[in-house]
Amino acid sequence: MAILEFDRTDDAGIAEMMTGLGKAARAASAALALATTEQKDAALTNAAAEIRKALPEILAANEKDLAFAREKDVRESLMDRLKLDEGRIEAIAKGIEDVAALPDPIGGVMAEWERPNGLKIARVRVPLGVIGIIYESRPNVTADAGSLCLKSGNAAILRGGSESFHSSNALVECLHRGLKAAGLPEAAVQLVPTRDRAAVGALLTMTDSVDIIVPRGGKSLIERVQKESRIPVIAHLDGVNHVYVDGAANPEMAREIVLNSKMRRTSVCGAAETLLVDRKIAETQLPGIAAALSGAGCALKGDAAARKIVPDMQQATEEDWSTEYLDAILSVRVVDGLDAAIDHINRYGSHHTDSIVTGDAAAAARFAARVDSAIVLHNASTQFADGGEFGMGAEIGISTGKMHARGPVGAEQLTSFKYVVTGTGQTRP
Amino acid sequence: MAILEFDRTDDAGIAEMMTGLGKAARAASAALALATTEQKDAALTNAAAEIRKALPEILAANEKDLAFAREKDVRESLMDRLKLDEGRIEAIAKGIEDVAALPDPIGGVMAEWERPNGLKIARVRVPLGVIGIIYESRPNVTADAGSLCLKSGNAAILRGGSESFHSSNALVECLHRGLKAAGLPEAAVQLVPTRDRAAVGALLTMTDSVDIIVPRGGKSLIERVQKESRIPVIAHLDGVNHVYVDGAANPEMAREIVLNSKMRRTSVCGAAETLLVDRKIAETQLPGIAAALSGAGCALKGDAAARKIVPDMQQATEEDWSTEYLDAILSVRVVDGLDAAIDHINRYGSHHTDSIVTGDAAAAARFAARVDSAIVLHNASTQFADGGEFGMGAEIGISTGKMHARGPVGAEQLTSFKYVVTGTGQTRP
Repeated sequence: MAILEFDRTDDAGIAEMMTGLGKAARAASAALALATTEQKDAALTNAAAEIRKALPEILAANEKDLAFAREKDVRESLMDRLKLDEGRIEAIAKGIEDVAALPDPIGGVMAEWERPNGLKIARVRVPLGVIGIIYESRPNVTADAGSLCLKSGNAAILRGGSESFHSSNALVECLHRGLKAAGLPEAAVQLVPTRDRAAVGALLTMTDSVDIIVPRGGKSLIERVQKESRIPVIAHLDGVNHVYVDGAANPEMAREIVLNSKMRRTSVCGAAETLLVDRKIAETQLPGIAAALSGAGCALKGDAAARKIVPDMQQATEEDWSTEYLDAILSVRVVDGLDAAIDHINRYGSHHTDSIVTGDAAAAARFAARVDSAIVLHNASTQFADGGEFGMGAEIGISTGKMHARGPVGAEQLTSFKYVVTGTGQTRP
Repeated sequence: MAILEFDRTDDAGIAEMMTGLGKAARAASAALALATTEQKDAALTNAAAEIRKALPEILAANEKDLAFAREKDVRESLMDRLKLDEGRIEAIAKGIEDVAALPDPIGGVMAEWERPNGLKIARVRVPLGVIGIIYESRPNVTADAGSLCLKSGNAAILRGGSESFHSSNALVECLHRGLKAAGLPEAAVQLVPTRDRAAVGALLTMTDSVDIIVPRGGKSLIERVQKESRIPVIAHLDGVNHVYVDGAANPEMAREIVLNSKMRRTSVCGAAETLLVDRKIAETQLPGIAAALSGAGCALKGDAAARKIVPDMQQATEEDWSTEYLDAILSVRVVDGLDAAIDHINRYGSHHTDSIVTGDAAAAARFAARVDSAIVLHNASTQFADGGEFGMGAEIGISTGKMHARGPVGAEQLTSFKYVVTGTGQTRP
């Protein structure tokens, strides 16, 4: 059954509707926490099949969204993310099946021990409860986030961008059919049934019914959520990532890693934004690296030392060192060896993903210990910063915070635990 | 060297001073993250020795605090927590040595795996960074919290109650001497050098330099911190804990567990506040349990069914079911079996600690799976809700939140992790 768009726009009406959503999610989460692995996987597999079956309906819903977006004259990149076709819908269905195939993170005993008084203590993995996900107009996130929450036993409240309302709605209907067939409550995955932005404000204050908020999108969205939310947030704001080419780097490997880290895809959060080059090898290696980057269409902004070696770079400003371009632009700095590189990264970076290229194992170990980032790589591209590449299956995002989850956030990171203590009548002296 | 009390009281002055504290803590945390186990343990062992040596100075400082508190006419229970004597100071020194003897949580590989492309991924435990602890006028918390943060490689900013300023100051001086002798920065443990409450407000907004806030104290303190903090908070607000005596309970065991859960210490967060009794055995078991409680000085507040069996109970109101008495008062309800008990606990409880007394293993398993609390016990007293009793060594508090830490928060819970990825030149296709 299609979700009807909520027709009130007054704050009180929206708040009341959101409270209802929260209560339904809380009730569903209690059922989900007790669902068997088979039930959850059946719901996901069913949902994938329903999506394939509903191809014409999903495409029609997407047409409505595209027309609305064209009317609003949204930019091309948004239109591209919004648009669905047969191949993309198949990829969404396949993505849900991939989540079904992941191991169930819930119910496992993480640790157990016995106390001298005979008490047996077990730490058991449980779901977080209810997760609110706020994202842009990307229908695939609806399916990704919904299925990952379901797999990890959490109820999801999804709030996608307004341009994707009908597409997301059509996908959530398929998830509902999958849940129903598996004997699980449809409220396990709910789409906020209004495009009104007041719904986001309401969601961020629902401390009784929502346990965690995951914003996915641009900087302004994440900043708003982090500022307004009364609920704990898992997010990352920036990916100001570095590649440091050490004095002991293999020149060819360094060139390939820098090129891939920057140019494989410039719009992803794992893309490199700054290249640091050890002064010892800058004169011999920087020209080749710069030529490869320029040849691939990358603009370079260098400090004085870098521009002395490659004169056709623009001058980098202080601001460049902390800028996430998400574009074919790279800032370049010549540094006095390993420790200067580490200092630069910890000072200007965003604690996301940083890589060192070196043949010196001690330098790599020092870099790994001292760079305070979620992901530190040795002789590998920063573009590996991704839950799928880590073998975690789908991810709901990457966290640059240190609390709870750090790095790629997959099904296992969407869990908590409880202590189950078994006695034989023990009282405490 | 004694910490001088900061003499400005204007908000700008305090904010500036706190920013300086934050910067020093951040710098110290970088050094602490790299400190060896031996260094950290030496700092702790030294500090314990310094505390024993400084006994007269600590007692003199405590005298000043007691005089100040008497002038403010604070209540007796606060005076008792504030007062130090030789025995209590020895217990503080011993507590620090106990923390030194704990395993080092930092640096261990939590998991490692290899990807088909040859990338080796390790998840390595690292400190959180800087922890702000806000607590009442209890000098022992200064030593507990400071040493637990140090053990886990975190810098601590301590803000104790104003009445304990001189005592805490004297203890922190001993920690500083211990740190210095071990070659670690004194700023690893800092005491906020002002009694001005504006310092708390400043601390709660220092998102750049503080990673986590741990409030310890009464409800109003924790509510204020949760409301104002822009930094993630680990805390528990309430301990509305239950003992459910099931139809299949051993009567003697039930009586002992209820009595201990309520009366061993009524002021701790693990104390039981509500007794639920299965209707099947209420008539046979409740009189004995009630007599034992009354005999120990506990007042009882019952629902209609309980008062029918034990008439001299007061009438419990709806509010009683969600009240944390922290006193010799227990609310008593007769319930229709296991599921009614679970529903009551999930509705009225605070997700802290709940216990079932039963000889029926299936009932115990159902209770453990369905009660949504940090700690669920079977045939044991709720008063075991304590990091020490769990074998975790010292604890900084108990978390009723599900994010990051749940239940007792010990050294291991004060950590995060990073991913260290080792390649041989891999780029992402």
